Amino acid sequence: MKKVNEKLEKMGTKVLDDINKQENPSVDIPIRSLSNVAYDDKTGMLALGDKSAKRFLFHTAHAKKFTQTMLVAAFCKQLLKENIHTSLRDLFYALKRTFPNSDENTFDEQKESDPVVVDLEVMLDVLREKFHLNADIRGRVVGNLKIKDRGDIIDLSRLGSGGWAIPSNVEEIAFKKVDADFILVIEKNAAFERLHEDNFWKKHKCILITTQGQAARGTRRLIQRLTTDFNLPVYVFTDADSYGWYIYSVIKYGSMSLAHVSDRLGTPNAKFLGMTISDIDKFGLKNFTIRAREVDIKRAKDMLKYEWFKHPAWQKELKLMIQRKVKAELEALSGRGLKFVTETYLPGKIKKKDFLP
Amino acid sequence: MKKVNEKLEKMGTKVLDDINKQENPSVDIPIRSLSNVAYDDKTGMLALGDKSAKRFLFHTAHAKKFTQTMLVAAFCKQLLKENIHTSLRDLFYALKRTFPNSDENTFDEQKESDPVVVDLEVMLDVLREKFHLNADIRGRVVGNLKIKDRGDIIDLSRLGSGGWAIPSNVEEIAFKKVDADFILVIEKNAAFERLHEDNFWKKHKCILITTQGQAARGTRRLIQRLTTDFNLPVYVFTDADSYGWYIYSVIKYGSMSLAHVSDRLGTPNAKFLGMTISDIDKFGLKNFTIRAREVDIKRAKDMLKYEWFKHPAWQKELKLMIQRKVKAELEALSGRGLKFVTETYLPGKIKKKDFLP
Repeated sequence: MKKVNEKLEKMGTKVLDDINKQENPSVDIPIRSLSNVAYDDKTGMLALGDKSAKRFLFHTAHAKKFTQTMLVAAFCKQLLKENIHTSLRDLFYALKRTFPNSDENTFDEQKESDPVVVDLEVMLDVLREKFHLNADIRGRVVGNLKIKDRGDIIDLSRLGSGGWAIPSNVEEIAFKKVDADFILVIEKNAAFERLHEDNFWKKHKCILITTQGQAARGTRRLIQRLTTDFNLPVYVFTDADSYGWYIYSVIKYGSMSLAHVSDRLGTPNAKFLGMTISDIDKFGLKNFTIRAREVDIKRAKDMLKYEWFKHPAWQKELKLMIQRKVKAELEALSGRGLKFVTETYLPGKIKKKDFLP
Repeated sequence: MKKVNEKLEKMGTKVLDDINKQENPSVDIPIRSLSNVAYDDKTGMLALGDKSAKRFLFHTAHAKKFTQTMLVAAFCKQLLKENIHTSLRDLFYALKRTFPNSDENTFDEQKESDPVVVDLEVMLDVLREKFHLNADIRGRVVGNLKIKDRGDIIDLSRLGSGGWAIPSNVEEIAFKKVDADFILVIEKNAAFERLHEDNFWKKHKCILITTQGQAARGTRRLIQRLTTDFNLPVYVFTDADSYGWYIYSVIKYGSMSLAHVSDRLGTPNAKFLGMTISDIDKFGLKNFTIRAREVDIKRAKDMLKYEWFKHPAWQKELKLMIQRKVKAELEALSGRGLKFVTETYLPGKIKKKDFLP
């Protein structure tokens, strides 16, 4: 936290220096458009290139953006000082005001303040969570895992039929005891409950996490921290469709819009367990498929071109989906019996290491 | 559970008797269309009337529906026997198959199996959760509360910055210790985290619950069970708009589509804490409002006509929203400072009992 504070102060001091030297105050902001995002072979993640742009105070096109940047930075400094965490939505409201003697607002919409937060993240190389700005909140976890958080010791193996509700910010959590062979990440809360009830995590000695759709930053960071600290393999289990596979890719590689934080949110060693379109034939699920919508097919076509889906195994699955115009939800496995997923499908895949990269 | 099983068996036996008597097998199903839903003054909840309709096996318009009813009932009996819980989506897949020597499926879409589950709930007067069918999963809770679930004792006051992830089914949870003066229910996870961080539930001795939008059945049932068993007041805190108010009304009165279970999911003593459109003037939030969309206004106009929004205080708020075409999110309170909500707004409302009915 002290380091983050120093970075904010350094930025402020630099602007003050500009003023004292009677120069046009400015900050340097790395460019985040797709032209500056690339897949990094070495790390196996999406990363930002090194293009950047200056933002000036005295510049008709920059003046407002520059002011907004200073407002957001000052707000973050205040959050750190008061030790308060808040959301992007709250930041927007807290900073929204009208400039004196004008009709001009500091921010009209959250769409204006969100990118400024990302600017600050990139510029100072600090996760927004470390500025005490919290992101979306979703995700649940259970397993043989003891953590310490805000002074409480929490045993994630003793939470009944529920689980631990993952907060938006997991930076300050300490892992006290981890007794697991792998992490299983599931896209859906209902499947999480099914596996939880079948004691899957006890029988197979794993940590069970549900993302509830696209994984929130807190959940991605938790997965990343667990796998980094304890060298745990991560297997991701989603629907067999382009959206499910995209959820997987964001956990593994990071997202295009947040490429600057892939190293802290991405989990390059994650593997895809299923479901695939090939699973439909392999496990006799033909009667339980769904017609893919146009938007699913379009996404699959886009993904064919992504460098991080160039592996032949992925190209095959994407093409199968496009050709057959079909998808399968993970609940489709219930067509083979309610315990098929916990007793046959998952253990079989894990035993044979039948994963996609 | 034994009672539920008996009810299912009784229904099966009745159909068998019909067959033995060479009568056309039938079941009696209460009608659930709006014409049979009314606001019950005595209980203060939405309830079903007593119209019902017969469903026959030998009847061109009923045969498939009748068969589906038997399939779902048999499936539920199996769930109880094997002590498995599952989701409506899984039920659909597990029962989806093609009739022998035909192109006809038992169910083509989940849209067909869901209403059959509701039929069964109404017909046998049993919550679907007691058939081991789980609903949507959302919601988090913290507070001075100890519960017992699946053999685990869970202390909801020692869960760090997270909380207990509320499962879809809370029927079998036992309350071991409850030390709270009221329950505060919030619409949004981010506001829940803000209050949690400020130790609101400790300072004000309450149980804090987030619904994450429309409250899932598990969360509604948890609120209802807590308030019934411990006579706790319930205060609901949502955005100032028709959607937020609707979320409140569903917690309090039940929903129109599930009027047959209001008595087990509704919490008639719930009070609305805020936000209201009047709050915008009262708390100086004019600069932090949002323009209401057409769909918000339309919903407000519909709600004006609902019997359970006929109270003058509600009519006033609905009309204000329609006239001003404005709404306010609960984050708007951050415009008055990040701690305004926890230190001023909420304590003030609770102290003055400034609630809407």
